[in-house]
Amino acid sequence: MVRLCSSEQYVSLIDNYDTWMFDCDGVLWHDDQLIDGALDVLRLLRHRKKTIVFVTNNATKSRRDYKTKFDRLGVEAHVDEIYGSAYASAVYLSSVVKFPRDKKVYVIGMSGLEDELKEEGIQYLGGTDPADCTLAPFSLADFVLDEDIAAVLCGFDSNITYTKLSKAFQYLTRNLGCQFLVTNEDSTYPNAYGILPGGGALTASLRYALGKNPLCIGKPSATMLDCIRAKISYDPKRTIMVGDRLNTDILFGQNGGISTLLVLTGVTIEGDITGPNASSIIPDYVTESVGDLRAVG
Amino acid sequence: MVRLCSSEQYVSLIDNYDTWMFDCDGVLWHDDQLIDGALDVLRLLRHRKKTIVFVTNNATKSRRDYKTKFDRLGVEAHVDEIYGSAYASAVYLSSVVKFPRDKKVYVIGMSGLEDELKEEGIQYLGGTDPADCTLAPFSLADFVLDEDIAAVLCGFDSNITYTKLSKAFQYLTRNLGCQFLVTNEDSTYPNAYGILPGGGALTASLRYALGKNPLCIGKPSATMLDCIRAKISYDPKRTIMVGDRLNTDILFGQNGGISTLLVLTGVTIEGDITGPNASSIIPDYVTESVGDLRAVG
Repeated sequence: MVRLCSSEQYVSLIDNYDTWMFDCDGVLWHDDQLIDGALDVLRLLRHRKKTIVFVTNNATKSRRDYKTKFDRLGVEAHVDEIYGSAYASAVYLSSVVKFPRDKKVYVIGMSGLEDELKEEGIQYLGGTDPADCTLAPFSLADFVLDEDIAAVLCGFDSNITYTKLSKAFQYLTRNLGCQFLVTNEDSTYPNAYGILPGGGALTASLRYALGKNPLCIGKPSATMLDCIRAKISYDPKRTIMVGDRLNTDILFGQNGGISTLLVLTGVTIEGDITGPNASSIIPDYVTESVGDLRAVG
Repeated sequence: MVRLCSSEQYVSLIDNYDTWMFDCDGVLWHDDQLIDGALDVLRLLRHRKKTIVFVTNNATKSRRDYKTKFDRLGVEAHVDEIYGSAYASAVYLSSVVKFPRDKKVYVIGMSGLEDELKEEGIQYLGGTDPADCTLAPFSLADFVLDEDIAAVLCGFDSNITYTKLSKAFQYLTRNLGCQFLVTNEDSTYPNAYGILPGGGALTASLRYALGKNPLCIGKPSATMLDCIRAKISYDPKRTIMVGDRLNTDILFGQNGGISTLLVLTGVTIEGDITGPNASSIIPDYVTESVGDLRAVG
């Protein structure tokens, strides 16, 4: 673990990597507040012709939804640079496993996830369908199993219902070979007012009922990187992941065989990387803030 | 493990135990169909002045709700013989931990659970409150934390919502010392049309978001027996639990230091207790059906 501080170190870091993957919240911004210097550093990297990729576990937004957030904050970003776990899940189905066009996915998730599936040409049921977003009792007697459902994809869904959980459970136990996929396994997510249960907390229900683990698409799973690789080419030796979370961002980089830079502007604090309670997940580089890279001048 | 078959064995079994605890579904009935001989055996035990207790993990029904099921099937039962995990949870609060009368419980669960809390004089919020049974977005900014919530009690709730999960999460993370209780941890439950996610699948969400385990009241937890003990007296040496599930009923008996009789009319099959895939949970006695006890004549 190299702790970066001199401008020589930052110069050599930028020289050594052509592809820069960034987590967003806690790295480039906090909620609606940009991290000091983040804009300058992104501009600098673009000026030096680096490939920039934004990698987020947020599964509720499509890349287009996400782009409006970049626009609002004044951060230059192109839709094809943004990899959310919703998009990555759609790409996993369309390009990694070549999901059959005549099969369907049962979705627990929101419109951003549906939009990405549509764009990748994946048929789906569930999601925002009012028939599933209901607190009316679920009747197994009246339920008609769609035999074309060959995967269940579960992401964060603020309209989670027992009907959705029950239908997903039926497909996963009754449709032979039905794949169990989750966009990400984040246990919680922070917003400006506190902490709330995350997408992983919803998928935990299915995991417990089924007694089996899903394939996770989002960070720290290297599946996310498979999805990025399906769309862009990069040299792993010259690629670096910049993030604020050891157990998602840094582990993701390590699982994918790329370098890692930890910033301390998000959830990870000094005590997580040094001292008696330090994590076993050790980044290649550490710097206080992404803004530090401005030191290259 | 003694396999009962002769009438002498059944006679001695009945002589040896004064208190008989029965699981219901899979032991006395299947859904709405009585097990052959179950009525005769219950009558026989009553005739011999045995204490009868019905112990069920169902947390959606109060004892009174449950009594109507007994009545419908023509099974003699008294409300104070019925221990569901809803009632046991209320008794745990009122009698085992002496929950302060000025504190409140936040409930994920249905009206049967609320009824039992009311009857034991426990104040609660949540449950069937329309403000929580809603798919309207949950706003943490508008949420007012009730500092009197000193426990979260989670049971099966077919009206589970993200609002309920979020509120429960706030209480468990922000109210110091707030207890995390669950009625039961059954991963699934069978009905006449198939299998559905159980109460444990809903509490799994909170467990995952919090990264901590709750105290479970229902079987196989011995807490259920503490609740029974708070209401009736029995001699553990002369008490037997009759059930069809190794990992709930039989383990419950073992955790509570009472004898156990497995019947094979429910989920456990011969291959679960003999042969290479046998469970490590071994009942004291096994018989095909509760109806076999009629052999005492």
